[in-house]
Amino acid sequence: MTTPDQYPTHESAPSDASDTTTVQDDAPEAPSLFEKCQRFFDPSGDYAKLKRADLYPYFRPIEESEGSRAVMDGDEVIMAGSNNYLGLTSDPRVKEAAKQAVDEYGTGCTGSRFLNGTLDLHLELEERLADFMGKDKAVLFSTGYMTNMGVVEAIATKGDIVFSDKDNHACINAGTRTSFAETRRYQHNDMDHLRTMLERAHEDRPDAGKLIATDGVFSMSGKVAQVPTLLDLAEEFDAALMLDDAHAIGAIGRGGRGSASTFGRKDDVHIITGTFSKSFASIGGFAVGDCDVIEYIRHESSPHIFSASMPPSTVATVLKSLDILENEPERLDRLQEVSDYMRNGFKNLGFDVWESETPIIPVVIGDMEQCFRFWRDLLAEGVFVNAVVPPAVPKGQALMRTSYMATHTDEELDQILDAFHKIGKKHGVIGQNGHSQNGHAAGH
Amino acid sequence: MTTPDQYPTHESAPSDASDTTTVQDDAPEAPSLFEKCQRFFDPSGDYAKLKRADLYPYFRPIEESEGSRAVMDGDEVIMAGSNNYLGLTSDPRVKEAAKQAVDEYGTGCTGSRFLNGTLDLHLELEERLADFMGKDKAVLFSTGYMTNMGVVEAIATKGDIVFSDKDNHACINAGTRTSFAETRRYQHNDMDHLRTMLERAHEDRPDAGKLIATDGVFSMSGKVAQVPTLLDLAEEFDAALMLDDAHAIGAIGRGGRGSASTFGRKDDVHIITGTFSKSFASIGGFAVGDCDVIEYIRHESSPHIFSASMPPSTVATVLKSLDILENEPERLDRLQEVSDYMRNGFKNLGFDVWESETPIIPVVIGDMEQCFRFWRDLLAEGVFVNAVVPPAVPKGQALMRTSYMATHTDEELDQILDAFHKIGKKHGVIGQNGHSQNGHAAGH
Repeated sequence: MTTPDQYPTHESAPSDASDTTTVQDDAPEAPSLFEKCQRFFDPSGDYAKLKRADLYPYFRPIEESEGSRAVMDGDEVIMAGSNNYLGLTSDPRVKEAAKQAVDEYGTGCTGSRFLNGTLDLHLELEERLADFMGKDKAVLFSTGYMTNMGVVEAIATKGDIVFSDKDNHACINAGTRTSFAETRRYQHNDMDHLRTMLERAHEDRPDAGKLIATDGVFSMSGKVAQVPTLLDLAEEFDAALMLDDAHAIGAIGRGGRGSASTFGRKDDVHIITGTFSKSFASIGGFAVGDCDVIEYIRHESSPHIFSASMPPSTVATVLKSLDILENEPERLDRLQEVSDYMRNGFKNLGFDVWESETPIIPVVIGDMEQCFRFWRDLLAEGVFVNAVVPPAVPKGQALMRTSYMATHTDEELDQILDAFHKIGKKHGVIGQNGHSQNGHAAGH
Repeated sequence: MTTPDQYPTHESAPSDASDTTTVQDDAPEAPSLFEKCQRFFDPSGDYAKLKRADLYPYFRPIEESEGSRAVMDGDEVIMAGSNNYLGLTSDPRVKEAAKQAVDEYGTGCTGSRFLNGTLDLHLELEERLADFMGKDKAVLFSTGYMTNMGVVEAIATKGDIVFSDKDNHACINAGTRTSFAETRRYQHNDMDHLRTMLERAHEDRPDAGKLIATDGVFSMSGKVAQVPTLLDLAEEFDAALMLDDAHAIGAIGRGGRGSASTFGRKDDVHIITGTFSKSFASIGGFAVGDCDVIEYIRHESSPHIFSASMPPSTVATVLKSLDILENEPERLDRLQEVSDYMRNGFKNLGFDVWESETPIIPVVIGDMEQCFRFWRDLLAEGVFVNAVVPPAVPKGQALMRTSYMATHTDEELDQILDAFHKIGKKHGVIGQNGHSQNGHAAGH
């Protein structure tokens, strides 16, 4: 079959290699902009060293995934490194809803919510989420990343100040960079430092609008933000509080309503954001708040206005997951039970799990190379977790980020603990006398 | 059914309104940060005025969508405002592929490519796209917006300079803000101005890495960037060229390979990006280029590393759409034919279509309010297009952004022209003697 010259074909267009899909052999010298790329892959650099030692733990492909199990490199592993808290990505009802939306609406919207990409399905989900969270309105974004970025940049503009926790997720940091507001970052979870900063701002920029932005649950430590103190400070200093509840909604709080809900203070938070790529088995995100605030964000946020809207199947997936979350609270009970069991299990084995209080449980290993070796040995034992190294965590605190699902079986949990016990002793992370948790599985 | 207190429940947590999903009645005074929201919706403001006059054309929900038709407010309309260039969102083969991926892999990946969100399906699509574009490697992003933002911020860092067209898409602008490089914006499509800026940079910052970033097809005008001149300038000044081919790949160029391909220069462009929410009937995006450049972006780009990966069904949708694009070149022929027919049709009626040379055809109306009235009247005639007003276009040049599909029928095209003819005369945008295009439909 010949490939036609598609219009517009411009004058004297020579035949480039595109038709035969070959790659150029004699590429001209790369612009100096790309020197950084060559340096990154230099044979003497960290990346090349880790690759040579087969210690590089990232971008590993998954061939199959079913509930708490996955197949990697042909071997089945227990998945303890997903954010699939309720285990709904493989729920038959959720899958059926996704497929039905493809049949009814097609595979994509090919346009932004603003122009031709708003389906009645999007409006339905926004109403359901606002109701679920007990807020006036909700607005959807096509990724969780764009949600936080888009909220921060829209609501904090020239003349405003954003007070941002130093350990906030990368997407909040992106929002502080795309925003024209000034950003002041406070020490992680340090309410005294935040107060000092607010006092200073009250003096040096009394008329500035103020936004306090923080993760509701910190994604590496599994720690919950100090919502009551944050709310007190917000009120005292005329600031708005925004909570990124990506790891909280659908996981903790009353009926899965997130971090502020664990303190009974959900209604007092000005803006709460969530994501669909965790408990909601899909992709995308949302913000809830007062009507004028949310409608303002809808009209002013660049990542909302200039991005294609969520495809129908991803919206339908969230709607069905929300049904299940509301109708099967036992899933949240089980998630809590699993998390408590694992946290106690790791502690009893002698591991340091920081101050985790959610289904995210970090297990501290030590330096970077030890961490990568630990990760590789765990995988050989059939357990997949995520290796997290500096600068994402402090130096010497490289860790295995583990996370749990309502659908993990008791047997799987004990297999995970056994593997950590064995590898932990081998690497000297725990002593020889760590207690095995065998035979004491969570509840059911 | 009772809603359990989910852990962690913190001390003295009062029962907030969450359980009964009521909205607060006596909300405390809003922080001054939100004054901008109240101003936006002020009854004397533009937004309130347009809403009252029923002239507000944005965020209109679509109830059903099938090919080139949609249902809005219960009425069927011809869709001339999508980016569904090949009409594949409702193709049965594409829909089947999406559904099969849900069955095989579930509804979502619940993690980033970096950690637990890489499926073999993602790797397959990256290989297919690199082959299709005749480049070493491809890297996926979960939205087109994050693609351009993520490429710019990763590849242009501290010490570099980005030269960016003033009419570039919002997501390139977002990348210049998240990047730590300096940004210098040149007048739209003005190669002399770009040369002047490059000369100046060569003098004042000779050692800076340089990136020229431009849309390959400008999304409002449908104009193609001057790729040969851009490449000459890049070579002369040791700069890299990045083309955002969101509206070009799958629409123009040899076999749909984009803007540079129309000049036979695709292989010379350092980085080409594309999106999946247009011809590829899905959502997401990709960048192609040399191996070290793409792998560097994969490891250094925040929106790639810290965002959930594309759900299986959206990847499968793109793979099937790519099959169809490669095997049915007649779709591109038809798209070109449709676009030529409409461009000539509008010109013959006396409309100003700027310098469009792609399936995007702007039709200039005049001032903002006239534009909104025109839009409403067109909708009443059963034609949906997008109203674009300043600052997205110059003052007095508010326009109807129309865009076409390979699957528009000849009859639909003439209905669109007839509606524009009728409304154009009514509003005095064209004279009473504009020639109707009836009876001269495109080709088939």
